[in-house]
Amino acid sequence: MIRSIYFPPREAPIRNLPVEQYESCIQEPEGLLWVILEKTNPDEIRSILADAFHFHPLAVEDCIDHGYQTPKIDDFEDYLFIITHAILPSPEISEDDVLELDLFLGANYLVTVSTEQVMPPVEKTWKLLAKDKRLHAGGADFLCHAVLDILVDDYMPLLDNMEDEIEKLEDLVLAKPKTETLERILALKHSIMVLRHIIWPQREVINRLSRDEFPMIDQQSRIYFRDIYDHLMRIQEMSENIRDVVSGSLDIYLNSTSLRLNEVMKALTIVSTIFLPLSFVAGNFGMNFKFMPELNWQLGYPMVLGIYLLIVGGMLYFFKRRGWF
Amino acid sequence: MIRSIYFPPREAPIRNLPVEQYESCIQEPEGLLWVILEKTNPDEIRSILADAFHFHPLAVEDCIDHGYQTPKIDDFEDYLFIITHAILPSPEISEDDVLELDLFLGANYLVTVSTEQVMPPVEKTWKLLAKDKRLHAGGADFLCHAVLDILVDDYMPLLDNMEDEIEKLEDLVLAKPKTETLERILALKHSIMVLRHIIWPQREVINRLSRDEFPMIDQQSRIYFRDIYDHLMRIQEMSENIRDVVSGSLDIYLNSTSLRLNEVMKALTIVSTIFLPLSFVAGNFGMNFKFMPELNWQLGYPMVLGIYLLIVGGMLYFFKRRGWF
Amino acid sequence: MIRSIYFPPREAPIRNLPVEQYESCIQEPEGLLWVILEKTNPDEIRSILADAFHFHPLAVEDCIDHGYQTPKIDDFEDYLFIITHAILPSPEISEDDVLELDLFLGANYLVTVSTEQVMPPVEKTWKLLAKDKRLHAGGADFLCHAVLDILVDDYMPLLDNMEDEIEKLEDLVLAKPKTETLERILALKHSIMVLRHIIWPQREVINRLSRDEFPMIDQQSRIYFRDIYDHLMRIQEMSENIRDVVSGSLDIYLNSTSLRLNEVMKALTIVSTIFLPLSFVAGNFGMNFKFMPELNWQLGYPMVLGIYLLIVGGMLYFFKRRGWF
Amino acid sequence: MIRSIYFPPREAPIRNLPVEQYESCIQEPEGLLWVILEKTNPDEIRSILADAFHFHPLAVEDCIDHGYQTPKIDDFEDYLFIITHAILPSPEISEDDVLELDLFLGANYLVTVSTEQVMPPVEKTWKLLAKDKRLHAGGADFLCHAVLDILVDDYMPLLDNMEDEIEKLEDLVLAKPKTETLERILALKHSIMVLRHIIWPQREVINRLSRDEFPMIDQQSRIYFRDIYDHLMRIQEMSENIRDVVSGSLDIYLNSTSLRLNEVMKALTIVSTIFLPLSFVAGNFGMNFKFMPELNWQLGYPMVLGIYLLIVGGMLYFFKRRGWF
Amino acid sequence: MIRSIYFPPREAPIRNLPVEQYESCIQEPEGLLWVILEKTNPDEIRSILADAFHFHPLAVEDCIDHGYQTPKIDDFEDYLFIITHAILPSPEISEDDVLELDLFLGANYLVTVSTEQVMPPVEKTWKLLAKDKRLHAGGADFLCHAVLDILVDDYMPLLDNMEDEIEKLEDLVLAKPKTETLERILALKHSIMVLRHIIWPQREVINRLSRDEFPMIDQQSRIYFRDIYDHLMRIQEMSENIRDVVSGSLDIYLNSTSLRLNEVMKALTIVSTIFLPLSFVAGNFGMNFKFMPELNWQLGYPMVLGIYLLIVGGMLYFFKRRGWF
Repeated sequence: MIRSIYFPPREAPIRNLPVEQYESCIQEPEGLLWVILEKTNPDEIRSILADAFHFHPLAVEDCIDHGYQTPKIDDFEDYLFIITHAILPSPEISEDDVLELDLFLGANYLVTVSTEQVMPPVEKTWKLLAKDKRLHAGGADFLCHAVLDILVDDYMPLLDNMEDEIEKLEDLVLAKPKTETLERILALKHSIMVLRHIIWPQREVINRLSRDEFPMIDQQSRIYFRDIYDHLMRIQEMSENIRDVVSGSLDIYLNSTSLRLNEVMKALTIVSTIFLPLSFVAGNFGMNFKFMPELNWQLGYPMVLGIYLLIVGGMLYFFKRRGWF
Repeated sequence: MIRSIYFPPREAPIRNLPVEQYESCIQEPEGLLWVILEKTNPDEIRSILADAFHFHPLAVEDCIDHGYQTPKIDDFEDYLFIITHAILPSPEISEDDVLELDLFLGANYLVTVSTEQVMPPVEKTWKLLAKDKRLHAGGADFLCHAVLDILVDDYMPLLDNMEDEIEKLEDLVLAKPKTETLERILALKHSIMVLRHIIWPQREVINRLSRDEFPMIDQQSRIYFRDIYDHLMRIQEMSENIRDVVSGSLDIYLNSTSLRLNEVMKALTIVSTIFLPLSFVAGNFGMNFKFMPELNWQLGYPMVLGIYLLIVGGMLYFFKRRGWF
Repeated sequence: MIRSIYFPPREAPIRNLPVEQYESCIQEPEGLLWVILEKTNPDEIRSILADAFHFHPLAVEDCIDHGYQTPKIDDFEDYLFIITHAILPSPEISEDDVLELDLFLGANYLVTVSTEQVMPPVEKTWKLLAKDKRLHAGGADFLCHAVLDILVDDYMPLLDNMEDEIEKLEDLVLAKPKTETLERILALKHSIMVLRHIIWPQREVINRLSRDEFPMIDQQSRIYFRDIYDHLMRIQEMSENIRDVVSGSLDIYLNSTSLRLNEVMKALTIVSTIFLPLSFVAGNFGMNFKFMPELNWQLGYPMVLGIYLLIVGGMLYFFKRRGWF
Repeated sequence: MIRSIYFPPREAPIRNLPVEQYESCIQEPEGLLWVILEKTNPDEIRSILADAFHFHPLAVEDCIDHGYQTPKIDDFEDYLFIITHAILPSPEISEDDVLELDLFLGANYLVTVSTEQVMPPVEKTWKLLAKDKRLHAGGADFLCHAVLDILVDDYMPLLDNMEDEIEKLEDLVLAKPKTETLERILALKHSIMVLRHIIWPQREVINRLSRDEFPMIDQQSRIYFRDIYDHLMRIQEMSENIRDVVSGSLDIYLNSTSLRLNEVMKALTIVSTIFLPLSFVAGNFGMNFKFMPELNWQLGYPMVLGIYLLIVGGMLYFFKRRGWF
Repeated sequence: MIRSIYFPPREAPIRNLPVEQYESCIQEPEGLLWVILEKTNPDEIRSILADAFHFHPLAVEDCIDHGYQTPKIDDFEDYLFIITHAILPSPEISEDDVLELDLFLGANYLVTVSTEQVMPPVEKTWKLLAKDKRLHAGGADFLCHAVLDILVDDYMPLLDNMEDEIEKLEDLVLAKPKTETLERILALKHSIMVLRHIIWPQREVINRLSRDEFPMIDQQSRIYFRDIYDHLMRIQEMSENIRDVVSGSLDIYLNSTSLRLNEVMKALTIVSTIFLPLSFVAGNFGMNFKFMPELNWQLGYPMVLGIYLLIVGGMLYFFKRRGWF
């Protein structure tokens, strides 16, 4: 699907203009052209990017390639090629929830390419365009900032969810550790790992955009990119935090299983050390020897009951002193 | 709540002057204006910061935003925008005890903004202002230093408390580990983590203020910011130290549970390996076979008692040699 | 085995030209000479590299040396000497599957040297040369890029295999950990370690080729080397990822054995704490004292059965409350 | 206590000259003044440092402040302010054994300040001054080097003690781990941690003195400071080494407790798995059924004895095959 | 012991020339003087180094000092002072197997100093000197390179031995872990630690020699020093590798003891949970109550045998389902 919008210098915007006119639009330095390629087939993408915009073949291939691409920024002098990642909301973030968004940023145009169908940040910016004049008045760099800003803001609810989840898990782990809890902790650990792998290079991309490296980004917009960078820093800090708490929970979980083992072993030991001697005493007087004087004693049985009490009392005293209760 | 104080060049200070006069005060290069916004509603904050001072919208939004903001310093040429964090004294520091304080530092004015009610460093500096002439004679940068100095000094009692706590816990852990001790260690670990997350970026902020980066901070004040930086270094070292001891205590705790398991198992093993053979011997002579010659022996029972002694003695000797006592 | 191909400025390529003509070919700045040395004996390698091309003795020795060589790039002004590593596909990558490929890149010639027989990237580039004109039209640097590009692309299937393997192992580890699973995890850990040791220095080599350091690599080719660099980054990220998951699986494996120990001990404790008291009660009434009133009671035996029930019920209630079921 | 010594250009040294003359001494560029403040009360320190030498108030406060100060070097253009740490010899180094020594180094004077009574490096240098002419001929920077050199050399015996201690502990840990050994390891770990916290920043201080940063340190003295730096490097390496061995010993200790648990459990299991079946067999033939044919067999009892042997032999064979002996 | 050799510009070399002539030899810029001090007493070393060569006192002291010295390079403008370490071949490398070799490298002379008797790299170079003309034709820097090259090459067999050892240990650890295996792993860990501590600073020394920092090392020799650097890189990589495998083996060892504990506990649990119920049943019918109807049943005993079978069968089924076999 191809959508486009062109803002001529002092006229009304034109929507979905034909591909052949892209080139003439770019000639007009004060205009602004935004082309959105979504779920388009590779051949069409290739024809538009290579033929209409003359982008470098390597960048075009990166757009079409279906594999995972690290976020990066490539400077081709006339335009920047930016790879970023949006994340689909999901209880457990896996590599499949990561959507790649490619941007070509020129002095007076922006081309956004995504091979997946849904790309919320582009969609939201497209809708905002009707309401907020600043988006197109600020030029291509400001428009690019708007897309990236929404993309980064969409990470926040994911992290909030994770924080809620890990707080619940922390309580569960202290209360009563189960294998199911372990699995949820491990899933969360995986989610946060995926997220961190995306954020790190993205931060670097935004950082370069906020420094005065590229001529198509003016001083004004740089402050706004700096703002996105601060957001990413915050997100990264939150993710480091979550990762720390997840690791801590894992440690407590592992320790709690060993604590419970201790408890189990104590119960076993207390019962065994009390009843094994008792049973032995009883067994002793169950022997069938002809000549066992105790068996004929009048007080033989009460004596044995007394021995029982001595053993139980002695053991309990011993356990008490060792602090096993 | 809005408070303000204005020191005209060679006249008596004016307190709580109306908002409209802020702009004219700033025009006077030798004056000094301090405006304090506390617990003010967002609209009022926005009107004062944006309309009276013309601060950048992104900085104004950062002041109003309720979420957690990483400490940072933004240079807007005419003024600096600084985000710092004060910590409320509390036995367990959580994210909720962290209060954000925002400062706008211009050549001849300081604006401090806090959305929370209590902000002790601002309060203390306000009171000091009456007593200590240096505070306003030194200019806006020195006044800013005073606020930050008090803010950083307020971290020290927190760390002292933590050091006391961890010393107690260290002793507890070696003496008699309980789940409750574990929970206190984990709480302390969390507190120190929160603290470290705040100190790190703050150190960077102060470091930049102590270097000759910004024109509104003169050589004199830089040495004082350097002093705050040294304090933060010391605080950070203390926090690293506490973290190390906390980790060490956790390790000892975990090891002590395994040591106790060892002790429990030894008790079980000693009792079992002594009484199981004894019981077997007794059980053997409790059998009802018609033809068991031993049962009719005159010395059968004394012989069994002798076997008992041999088993107990042999086992005790074995345990002794293995060093289990 | 020596193969060579020479592309004179505007004429048809000449294959396998005699060694003596190499030197005159290099004199022609617009020609392109590619010499491939494979499975050649050291003396022949030495004679060609040192006599025909006058390469530095240290570089020649590096080519002949059979030991493992770290990937590196040496700048000898007139030519670059590059050591890289290809990996043979194998279920478990060991140091033996790593093949060294040495390249000498001059302004108008490329010499590839490998002491092992099979060197897929060279083979594939050789075949591509017939089909793809760009390979020789782009000059020696582009040809060198083609070889390295294929070499790096050949890493990907290895990583894909590893990802499949680790996913299977992750499931196995949670389901039913066996020593065999441990061994496969450790093998995978070793494979990924070998791979990471190769990729790290290689990345540095490609990075230097993609920067504007060397005169024999023109601006055009640098972008293509940058592309290889991005691939290597992706491969490295994947390998870091796999390593993390491998470590995580090891942890779960270790934990699961301790979990199973817990389960085993619980079973033992439950059985012991139920049957030891029962046996004691039975043993008590098996004593042969003459004077044991209970033995003569009409309801003695039913009473004992009642005691049995009380003990079993009490224990089960106790275990239930402790949450051992 | 205040001590001082002044070396006029070509005359005999004057000891303990009055405070008022300090200022005139400093005026003489070819003289050398050394003032030692030890265990002096804060007011006196303040008056001398601020009034006679006009040192910066922040540096003066650092001298008086009783808390722990990180080693550092502050450049006040006319003089350097250096904070270093000496360590009192002690079997277990704690934070209390660390003594702060502050130095003010000017072009022709040195002021050493310590709030604690004993400061061995100062004392030793004072005594050396009488014997070794080079100390005052070399200027204030060489004198400063002498104090720091002795201070750093005093660390060595501490480290040698630690190395002896850890070697003993390593043997103890392998031979027979006790809780007492654990406590000594943890104490050593703490000592080495304190030491490392002191050495790190000190190394940085000396490094800056050995580089050509400060005008009051001439080329000659820089080589000597470089020598101290090398000593500190060696000390740091030794401390890293000790730390590694301490960590290793802790690991072995923890492992050895688990090894001993294994041994204990094996003993328990062997005894249990042999005697439980034996007891059952005996118990079976102790039943009082009227109709148990075996009880009347002539060979019933020998048969049971045979069963005993079979069980014991079978179990021993099983354990042997499993490698439990 | 003092050996020396002098190569005058175009004449035959002179061996063991008297100490007094050293100074005149150095005056001849085209000559080459090599002085070897081995096992010489400190006074003689001091007299030669200080009086004949006028080396800096600190460097001379470093040569005489018996303690461990970190490898380093000091630039005294006219000459370089280099400390390196050779390692004596030994099955377990300890700190005592590390021999210090000190080199003074001037424009036309080399002085090698070692306080220990045997110094293989010097010995080998001395012998090579007779055979290989390049050694003295290349100048003092090339001669220095030759010594260092042999010194570094001597590390390789040590690492090869370690690799063999760790491979054996890896197999042992998986097959049947014993305390002796643990001790060998720990010894290897210690050896590799010693080695790494030596290689790190040495790499830095060689790196500085291979860069264009020092005037006495010409462009030609730098490439050769770069070659030594590559060797050291390879050695370091190998040592990192060995360290990783050693750590991994330790982990497997620790895990295998816990695996074996699991196995032991399972055996105990299976035997206990089968025989405790059986014994209880037998004990029950061994009671001496007058009124126990079952005892008089004709089928009482077969019934009990049936119960035995039920218990054994039930337990085996339970264990099977839990996967304990």
